Amino acid sequence: MEMWFYEKHIPGAGICLKIKKTLYSKKSKYQEVQILETEEFGRMLVIDGMVMTTERDEFIYHEMLVHVPIFTHPNPENILVIGGGDGGTVRELVEHRDIKKITMVEIDKDVIDASKKFLPGLSGQLNNPRFKLIIGDGIKYVKSSTGKFDVIILDSSDPVGPAKELFSRDFFKNVYRCLKPDGILVAQTETPFMDKEVIKKTYKILKKIFPLVKLYFAPIPTYPSGMWSFAFASKKYDPLVNFDIERAMDKKFPTKYYNEDVHRGAFMLPEFMKRLVR
Amino acid sequence: MEMWFYEKHIPGAGICLKIKKTLYSKKSKYQEVQILETEEFGRMLVIDGMVMTTERDEFIYHEMLVHVPIFTHPNPENILVIGGGDGGTVRELVEHRDIKKITMVEIDKDVIDASKKFLPGLSGQLNNPRFKLIIGDGIKYVKSSTGKFDVIILDSSDPVGPAKELFSRDFFKNVYRCLKPDGILVAQTETPFMDKEVIKKTYKILKKIFPLVKLYFAPIPTYPSGMWSFAFASKKYDPLVNFDIERAMDKKFPTKYYNEDVHRGAFMLPEFMKRLVR
Repeated sequence: MEMWFYEKHIPGAGICLKIKKTLYSKKSKYQEVQILETEEFGRMLVIDGMVMTTERDEFIYHEMLVHVPIFTHPNPENILVIGGGDGGTVRELVEHRDIKKITMVEIDKDVIDASKKFLPGLSGQLNNPRFKLIIGDGIKYVKSSTGKFDVIILDSSDPVGPAKELFSRDFFKNVYRCLKPDGILVAQTETPFMDKEVIKKTYKILKKIFPLVKLYFAPIPTYPSGMWSFAFASKKYDPLVNFDIERAMDKKFPTKYYNEDVHRGAFMLPEFMKRLVR
Repeated sequence: MEMWFYEKHIPGAGICLKIKKTLYSKKSKYQEVQILETEEFGRMLVIDGMVMTTERDEFIYHEMLVHVPIFTHPNPENILVIGGGDGGTVRELVEHRDIKKITMVEIDKDVIDASKKFLPGLSGQLNNPRFKLIIGDGIKYVKSSTGKFDVIILDSSDPVGPAKELFSRDFFKNVYRCLKPDGILVAQTETPFMDKEVIKKTYKILKKIFPLVKLYFAPIPTYPSGMWSFAFASKKYDPLVNFDIERAMDKKFPTKYYNEDVHRGAFMLPEFMKRLVR
């Protein structure tokens, strides 16, 4: 018997992955959480039928989400992650010795538990002494928090279900307030090839709140269209002008996607992406 | 009834596209040629079950294959295209007014006929007065031709079936000989995410023949892994040093992917791609 997983990214197009077995499947309080063992992409976290991450290509997403803001900020000590339950973002953050404290607010404890059990390569740093986990609503958290973070990373699922509010004006205003006067927000912002309206709207909102907003992109095979965007929204630092290239070149940890070249290349946008965020 | 097209890129992973109808299907002398009307990607050329091009995302491939070498070469007058039967590469070449002659050697007349009939957006310049079509074997053509081309573009299908020899040492040696002393070869070279061995081998061969060889990349949604590579192999000009940025910025034709930023960004390679061609 062959078992295949299909995800329709839009009604008439998607990807298919051959599945060896289902390792975990649970209807949590918020969503359906599954971990599947694929034939080609290693283990895969699926939420509400959508691929969140696979062991084979997660490195691109997590490295680009973390190292771009961290190597731009001159003194990133206190970091907030919203979402990110699989642990991949924390794993990359922990590599930076200058980071003193990582707080993660994840709404769904089941995602963390499943990841700890079945995705050790991603979740391995969720017990790090510099890491603090809050099981809770990121939207509420930024409402009641104050300006103490150097970098906030929005590692959310797609803007449907519990993550929908994470792309709203109120939320981004609160994120702004939670950042120090020189803070940086980085957020995953869907595919510029398909989600044009989401991107237009999100960047319009961000530009009204942050003085500097840039889109950067990376190819991610298992995400819709295989082309992904990230927002770099900042109070002070520019990801190209303030990029600490020497620190990036001197880094003591290995990467598979990120390096000092791709840090800059990711901001060199194709024409249709430029037009989207103009 | 729903009709879906599946292409397995590797045995356990692929894409699926909803099909409205089959417009053309023929077993040619060399391969199976189909044109399908998809729900989301417009019309699609399929050869031996593999997506060659779709109306929705072909712009990325064709713009990156053509404009990178043409805006690098200071005086690109005489161009050879090997393969490229859909006509997209010729369409982009024709936009450059300084190009005097475009010769295309395509092995399969049925691909051209199908494209002329069903893909007018791609094949529209195949009657251009500066364009000359040769129905024939590109491998034989470069064996018997001499050094007269400024730029040779290898717009081949995957290295299986009739295109297999297009990735060999003998072929590239003949291509080198067909180029002028300052000529440039650009070739599509598969996905760096999956076809690691093909890429390693191809670049090793190219580096023994050409003094300057660089890989550049672009995300292409309907191609395996959504991440595609191109080889820039050159006798003299460097795609970054000799890039004529003013000519690129002054271009009189519209592009959707290519621009002067992405020309440079495409050579800023992620770590795993750098290692592949080191």
